[in-house]
Amino acid sequence: MSVMKKLEVGILGATGMVGQRLVSLLESHLWFEVAWLAASEKSAGKPYADACHWRLREPMPRAARALLVEECRPVGAPQLMFSSLDSKVAGEVERDFARAGHVVVSNSSNYRMEPDVPLLIPEVNPEHLALVRGQRQKRGWKGMIVTNPNCTTVGLAMSLAPLERAFGLEKVLMTSMQAVSGAGYPGVPTLDIFGNVIPYISNEEEKVERETQKLLGRLEDGAVRPGDFAVSAQCNRVLVEDGHTESISVALKTEASLRDLVEAWRSFRSIPQERALPSAPQHPIIVREECDRPQPKFDLHAERGMATVVGRLRPCPVLQYKYTALSHNTIRGAAGAALLNAELMKSEGYLD
Amino acid sequence: MSVMKKLEVGILGATGMVGQRLVSLLESHLWFEVAWLAASEKSAGKPYADACHWRLREPMPRAARALLVEECRPVGAPQLMFSSLDSKVAGEVERDFARAGHVVVSNSSNYRMEPDVPLLIPEVNPEHLALVRGQRQKRGWKGMIVTNPNCTTVGLAMSLAPLERAFGLEKVLMTSMQAVSGAGYPGVPTLDIFGNVIPYISNEEEKVERETQKLLGRLEDGAVRPGDFAVSAQCNRVLVEDGHTESISVALKTEASLRDLVEAWRSFRSIPQERALPSAPQHPIIVREECDRPQPKFDLHAERGMATVVGRLRPCPVLQYKYTALSHNTIRGAAGAALLNAELMKSEGYLD
Amino acid sequence: MSVMKKLEVGILGATGMVGQRLVSLLESHLWFEVAWLAASEKSAGKPYADACHWRLREPMPRAARALLVEECRPVGAPQLMFSSLDSKVAGEVERDFARAGHVVVSNSSNYRMEPDVPLLIPEVNPEHLALVRGQRQKRGWKGMIVTNPNCTTVGLAMSLAPLERAFGLEKVLMTSMQAVSGAGYPGVPTLDIFGNVIPYISNEEEKVERETQKLLGRLEDGAVRPGDFAVSAQCNRVLVEDGHTESISVALKTEASLRDLVEAWRSFRSIPQERALPSAPQHPIIVREECDRPQPKFDLHAERGMATVVGRLRPCPVLQYKYTALSHNTIRGAAGAALLNAELMKSEGYLD
Amino acid sequence: MSVMKKLEVGILGATGMVGQRLVSLLESHLWFEVAWLAASEKSAGKPYADACHWRLREPMPRAARALLVEECRPVGAPQLMFSSLDSKVAGEVERDFARAGHVVVSNSSNYRMEPDVPLLIPEVNPEHLALVRGQRQKRGWKGMIVTNPNCTTVGLAMSLAPLERAFGLEKVLMTSMQAVSGAGYPGVPTLDIFGNVIPYISNEEEKVERETQKLLGRLEDGAVRPGDFAVSAQCNRVLVEDGHTESISVALKTEASLRDLVEAWRSFRSIPQERALPSAPQHPIIVREECDRPQPKFDLHAERGMATVVGRLRPCPVLQYKYTALSHNTIRGAAGAALLNAELMKSEGYLD
Repeated sequence: MSVMKKLEVGILGATGMVGQRLVSLLESHLWFEVAWLAASEKSAGKPYADACHWRLREPMPRAARALLVEECRPVGAPQLMFSSLDSKVAGEVERDFARAGHVVVSNSSNYRMEPDVPLLIPEVNPEHLALVRGQRQKRGWKGMIVTNPNCTTVGLAMSLAPLERAFGLEKVLMTSMQAVSGAGYPGVPTLDIFGNVIPYISNEEEKVERETQKLLGRLEDGAVRPGDFAVSAQCNRVLVEDGHTESISVALKTEASLRDLVEAWRSFRSIPQERALPSAPQHPIIVREECDRPQPKFDLHAERGMATVVGRLRPCPVLQYKYTALSHNTIRGAAGAALLNAELMKSEGYLD
Repeated sequence: MSVMKKLEVGILGATGMVGQRLVSLLESHLWFEVAWLAASEKSAGKPYADACHWRLREPMPRAARALLVEECRPVGAPQLMFSSLDSKVAGEVERDFARAGHVVVSNSSNYRMEPDVPLLIPEVNPEHLALVRGQRQKRGWKGMIVTNPNCTTVGLAMSLAPLERAFGLEKVLMTSMQAVSGAGYPGVPTLDIFGNVIPYISNEEEKVERETQKLLGRLEDGAVRPGDFAVSAQCNRVLVEDGHTESISVALKTEASLRDLVEAWRSFRSIPQERALPSAPQHPIIVREECDRPQPKFDLHAERGMATVVGRLRPCPVLQYKYTALSHNTIRGAAGAALLNAELMKSEGYLD
Repeated sequence: MSVMKKLEVGILGATGMVGQRLVSLLESHLWFEVAWLAASEKSAGKPYADACHWRLREPMPRAARALLVEECRPVGAPQLMFSSLDSKVAGEVERDFARAGHVVVSNSSNYRMEPDVPLLIPEVNPEHLALVRGQRQKRGWKGMIVTNPNCTTVGLAMSLAPLERAFGLEKVLMTSMQAVSGAGYPGVPTLDIFGNVIPYISNEEEKVERETQKLLGRLEDGAVRPGDFAVSAQCNRVLVEDGHTESISVALKTEASLRDLVEAWRSFRSIPQERALPSAPQHPIIVREECDRPQPKFDLHAERGMATVVGRLRPCPVLQYKYTALSHNTIRGAAGAALLNAELMKSEGYLD
Repeated sequence: MSVMKKLEVGILGATGMVGQRLVSLLESHLWFEVAWLAASEKSAGKPYADACHWRLREPMPRAARALLVEECRPVGAPQLMFSSLDSKVAGEVERDFARAGHVVVSNSSNYRMEPDVPLLIPEVNPEHLALVRGQRQKRGWKGMIVTNPNCTTVGLAMSLAPLERAFGLEKVLMTSMQAVSGAGYPGVPTLDIFGNVIPYISNEEEKVERETQKLLGRLEDGAVRPGDFAVSAQCNRVLVEDGHTESISVALKTEASLRDLVEAWRSFRSIPQERALPSAPQHPIIVREECDRPQPKFDLHAERGMATVVGRLRPCPVLQYKYTALSHNTIRGAAGAALLNAELMKSEGYLD
């Protein structure tokens, strides 16, 4: 076996929760290795081990510890940049990097809904990647920006994609029970969530509704025509550390039996599976048949946190079917999503 | 001020969680006083203080401590009996008491859907109480059975009632995030729910769907014609001690603005308020206008746990409106529900 | 009954957790009423309802809502000032108020260990209040500063005081399991404490060890001679909202049976009880005899959070006796402590 | 590489929490493989997948799923038997197996304090294994019983062993904050522990005190002379899923600096490390130097749950030094402890 030299990558916002998860997932990545870390000014200049208040259970990777944290400027940065910057600064910084020729694979929300920016789940809409051509042309950038969806959107869109393909979607109603890690660190104060449910997460419902339509939309004449189904989201925070659980109801455009839906989910494969991308789950959707699954405690780590686990499929007296979906919010919903996007891009030749 | 002699009451299933709550709520009740407690055979014969593993934060009422726990047989029991028996035994025991002439106000699920048994929320369908006439006649009972709904149904039905009255209901979709106390004691093991969401509660969804339609149905020719709207429930257990939070979407039969709904909720009053029944909340429905309320932590004890608190009313892209409702599951959803039912019955002359 | 005009009081740091608790406890206080609230510059000028992110379960008192928040300067402030300022600013602000003639009853740690500042638990060392004479003289202040101990010290010192009085203390070892509310708001991030124990709280152990010795010390020639017993504290944070639980071992100077200790605790009364000060618990120490008490869930609110609840007294194979103590950290350990100090001062004529 | 045929082993109490952990740890064990599972009568005859309410995050090992659960009788069982039976039945069942010639490696408490039964931590007192000679002789058994300590004892004894060896122990005071998984399944009801600390675990303190003295005792003339130091334990349950945290104070017999203690811990190695037993941690004791470690969240899985992690070493004003220790209660404290005992026995030739 010949050893491929790994591609050096950088991370913008490396000290945040998603940045930490990226550093951790990249520790033993087959194709990429972390060579450059950047964060806010107060971290810049320090070794990552000192700048970062590490909050993951897994220890900080040895290789990252000594890396000096840089400021968020393109000079000296690798071509491939992951970004998990706060949305307050992501807009300008990501633009500067794209302009300077970098491929920015972003987890931030700033550019997701821009018509010329791909909002991407490699299993769901890999063809949207083609939007970057128009993006570069229109904006005159040497580089480009590609985004992944909000952590709550991912589980919903993943579970809907096979249904949309096979039966067409008409209506989607989703109520989420979201983990505290979705709010970053320090994030949710214990005094706010202990013994409590918070029925509101700022801007979350709007994101879920719009992003789902864009993700499941069709690329036509170089633009995405959003899915023509209605989506309604109610987002709640509950006392769970990782894992967003979603109660979902759908109405489909064509007839389909319970078995048809299960079959559509189980047979769902896409480019990441065909190409065996390093972070791709073998089974993007896992269907549990027990009456009380999925549960974060038992299903969160299915396929190393990259699968969407669904269960409890049954008829819905109001729409047509209802089910529960679970997705790991900081892996499949953030760091892993960005990684898989970058892997798709590499497999498409965007990083040569 | 003349002092009314209080009516002596009994409790079937007095050592369980709802039984304890009843004992606690009855400690300083204006009309009723606990005179007789019954539980399973293994408790019978012991003083309540010894038989009962008291789990409420409030101390066990002094008067109850020394009461000897009886077996669940009618001999010597007061006319008015509250029942919070396990459904495995409630069927027979409640029937025996009703047959023997007792007024059984039950929190158990066994008789709720019987056509001749009132399923009652005094603010919502007090007129259904009239079903007992047919019940006694048909069954040849000297006494009667009256029931209150499941703890998850209550918040839903309370918040829907003013909408049904004012605008007519067409469709209702509800996802619950339910407290562990709803499962009784010992109930949910810590190892099951800590860091977890359990997307399944046995029989709960069926109960919520059917009970809501019965509660909001019309009494016609001595029978209840269930509401002709569709209801779909998804029930989840989350790590909250008390308080069921519900994300609800509705479609109405007639035009109504956001303001119309708020006005319908705020102006909702019914017989318990008009007659100032002792356990009646002054405002059965409280509308919070903050973007992130209701929350169990802050709203659970509104009106001593007897109000339903709603908030986050906004348009629903799939149905018509969506909102969040919160209801105290062991007070308004169980012990307080039974108490208010008994108060309604007394005010109607059923206990003279 | 003639109605006493209430004394107007002010609060420094009114928007913090202890400030909120003070506002709440003062809502229906017999002697005092809140007339003046101050907080940091960014809150100043706003109505309290807007400036304060209210985190207590009880609603914000109506009277406080409209009060305009002031800056922390003495002009216009009432004579009696409660302070729950952050220790970063408390030093200067409290000095400025004392210099300007105010009686500052402080919960902050800054002046606690100053030789001329009383560190006070009214049941334990009311005579230390006399230190203020020297304080005013030495510092040339028109006003004065009086302090209450750290929240973790209170339960320890309260439970030790009767033992010290009756038998003399030789050695004390204490391990705490402290509630998250002790860290204020936003305080402990959920991601830090959920599923975790944090075996460290900055400076806490040093405070507990020194403050306990000062509290149980004797006033001799106008100065406090610290108790001559050894104290060792290990402080841990656990996932509890309110209530510090402490596992304590002691060695005494004289012989004493288990019964003697229980008797010493049960008979413990002091000036607050004799004078029936408004916030004084009738029983400062409550002894539970069940094998598994005290517990925060059941014992936190004993005597409205002003009692120390002890239990599990048994021989200690290393020292002499061991037991568990529980104290409400934001009531008896902070806001209620300050209130009772002010009540003692009023009863001593310091506020005339 | 030649492949060693694995030794078939059985598990008594295979459906309980420790039994599940044993099944999981044995899935890919180098020396042993699960061939026989037994549990109570109501489980007997069913496939393990049906009989066992699996509560571990890791999925049930495939090989175990189809094994039929046996009754707890020796016929047909392998020579090496792990036992995690409830102490109500362990006494008789373990005796029957030992009598019938089986080597019973038990996690149950029944025989731990018997003078002729080794209570074993392979790093601490491997020489105690020799007690089995007298055991077999005296009791006339063909087999034998060997035990591991209580989950709370393990972290304490592991951290004390190097101190006892190097400096001699005089006094030990320990306060535990124990995880709910220590109580098995269903174990601790959520309503008991949520928002609470329970300062009592039945018999736990007695076990910790006696077992620690036996473990650190010397083998003299074929009997264990318990350590001559005093031990005092206070045991508390807190809301943590896995991992017992302990605040410990010690007095030593000889002079020793902070550095000496750290050096004693860091250099601690014993037979399991020398022989590289499959479950042995490379570093039995890990010393963390951060001010706030160990913490269950970050240190629980050190050395796959087999290390004891210590930290916060500092002088104790009452005894001599104090520190915090953390140990995984169901791995190092139960299933992993039994495994390592069996590995030690195999390496000593007891299983040939």
